[in-house]
Amino acid sequence: MSEETVTIRAIPPDAAAIRAAAGRIAPWVRRTPLLSLPAAALGTPCDVTLKLELLQASGSFKPRGAFNRILSARAAGLLPPAGVIAASGGNHGAAVAYAARALGIPAEIFVPEITSPAKLARIQSYGATLVQGGATYDEARQASEARAAATGALIVHAYDQPEVLAGQGTLALELEEQAPELTHILVATGGGGLIGGVASWYGERVEVISVEPEGCPTLFTALREGYPVPAPVGGVAADSLGARQVGRLMFEVARRNIGTALLVPDEAIRAAQKALWEQVRLVAEPGGATALAALLCGAFVPPEGARVGVVVCGSNTDPGSVV
Amino acid sequence: MSEETVTIRAIPPDAAAIRAAAGRIAPWVRRTPLLSLPAAALGTPCDVTLKLELLQASGSFKPRGAFNRILSARAAGLLPPAGVIAASGGNHGAAVAYAARALGIPAEIFVPEITSPAKLARIQSYGATLVQGGATYDEARQASEARAAATGALIVHAYDQPEVLAGQGTLALELEEQAPELTHILVATGGGGLIGGVASWYGERVEVISVEPEGCPTLFTALREGYPVPAPVGGVAADSLGARQVGRLMFEVARRNIGTALLVPDEAIRAAQKALWEQVRLVAEPGGATALAALLCGAFVPPEGARVGVVVCGSNTDPGSVV
Repeated sequence: MSEETVTIRAIPPDAAAIRAAAGRIAPWVRRTPLLSLPAAALGTPCDVTLKLELLQASGSFKPRGAFNRILSARAAGLLPPAGVIAASGGNHGAAVAYAARALGIPAEIFVPEITSPAKLARIQSYGATLVQGGATYDEARQASEARAAATGALIVHAYDQPEVLAGQGTLALELEEQAPELTHILVATGGGGLIGGVASWYGERVEVISVEPEGCPTLFTALREGYPVPAPVGGVAADSLGARQVGRLMFEVARRNIGTALLVPDEAIRAAQKALWEQVRLVAEPGGATALAALLCGAFVPPEGARVGVVVCGSNTDPGSVV
Repeated sequence: MSEETVTIRAIPPDAAAIRAAAGRIAPWVRRTPLLSLPAAALGTPCDVTLKLELLQASGSFKPRGAFNRILSARAAGLLPPAGVIAASGGNHGAAVAYAARALGIPAEIFVPEITSPAKLARIQSYGATLVQGGATYDEARQASEARAAATGALIVHAYDQPEVLAGQGTLALELEEQAPELTHILVATGGGGLIGGVASWYGERVEVISVEPEGCPTLFTALREGYPVPAPVGGVAADSLGARQVGRLMFEVARRNIGTALLVPDEAIRAAQKALWEQVRLVAEPGGATALAALLCGAFVPPEGARVGVVVCGSNTDPGSVV
């Protein structure tokens, strides 16, 4: 019953909330550039515009949401002495740690056992307290929530808070300013914070397409079942896209504005990582290359005349792993 | 005497030649993006704008000059059946091989023994004939010129041809369009084709600053002696900046428009590579990180109010080498 109530009250961010977030976080995050490539460069079925969000501070898009959540709380006088707490496959934890250091507040980050060494190192490099345990993100999340209840720290959710979604949506605001001509945008989905924010911004102006690894089909499964349900967590991108189920907020957006939820095999993700390195000299982690994989492996076939954008959203991996 | 004559006839490209080059090569090269970073991001003494030329096709700025040289020859009906030939530390060879494949003509590339495995692999991946021999670029160049005399192939010089300089100058044309506010631009110098083209474009509008490894001080030595003379070739960036001496064309430009030629130690270059990876998730080869090194190690101290740009010009290295 209480879950039902929360579902009804789930209100995704509107354009005004995303604009406000953009203003709030602007001093703290990077405006990431685009790279436009002809079809021949990567072997895509059409020209493609890459949003190089892997060059964002802390190595993924996650600081957008983390800063918006923390700065909103601070502005409302709701930042407790215990600081902030977060659970994460790694990237969100790194972003919260990065934001907390920048803002001078303590941070405690919970990650599962599958979190990659590159992500552990990054979180620790920002001075946060790191707690590793549990098989997947979802177990780390439960541990973090129990800890938050004890310490009073502010929870910065990896995807299912309005301020987090609005923060991630600033990527789309920025992208539309940079490339207003795009008609289709491919985004990787884990918990759905990024694509939820992106689809909240674009509404029906652009077709936002979800891409997930076959091993972590959270949105694919939720759309099939009609509501967020647990999905398997596995494969090469599990430490960034292994959220077990999409957020309730993003699902409200997805039902209205995300028509297509594609799945790609791990081999396609590895091939996309390799292509990004070989042809563009970019190091993307598996989750960061997942959206592009759909275009390279034929899971997404752009319609005639489509102007396709791809969000390359993370790079927290061993750089030697992409060759 | 013949060398004296050539020196007198050395005419660097003017703005019109660079504009023409930009139009000629536009279908074949990428317009590389910028990334603006606050001082805190990399620990620079001021905010900095990176020109991400390491994302250029073939992994360095070199296709700009290579395409301009080859397309100019083709337009003039001067492309021989034997195709093109080039000597290179690696990046220019990769670019000529890339251009030759794109244009459907044969290419033969001469590289010295110090050329890195990443560069050898790249040249071969483009289908060029690879000839490795000689201790440094200069010996490979001599071998390539003897071979060209036998085959009649068109020489695409790594830096000392007007079309090559004009092609590299298109980077500056592009950069000025993207960031007209810049007052100082740091560029790495080997044979000087890139900085010669950049300084030809900017003239006195911007202060173009040369940065070289202490182990390859070609422009530093030439400016001290008053003309291009051989310099030592060594250190971590020798396979991209180890030209032995700067070109005669670029030296004409340097005498007028390059006031500062800085040297940086290898450790500063390695630190810049590491900072680019850790803080920006970019993989730069040593030569690609050399310009930034001057800002990070204090060799270049920007004056009050300077708006500083740095060209990050190459990424053909083992990605695992930057951590």
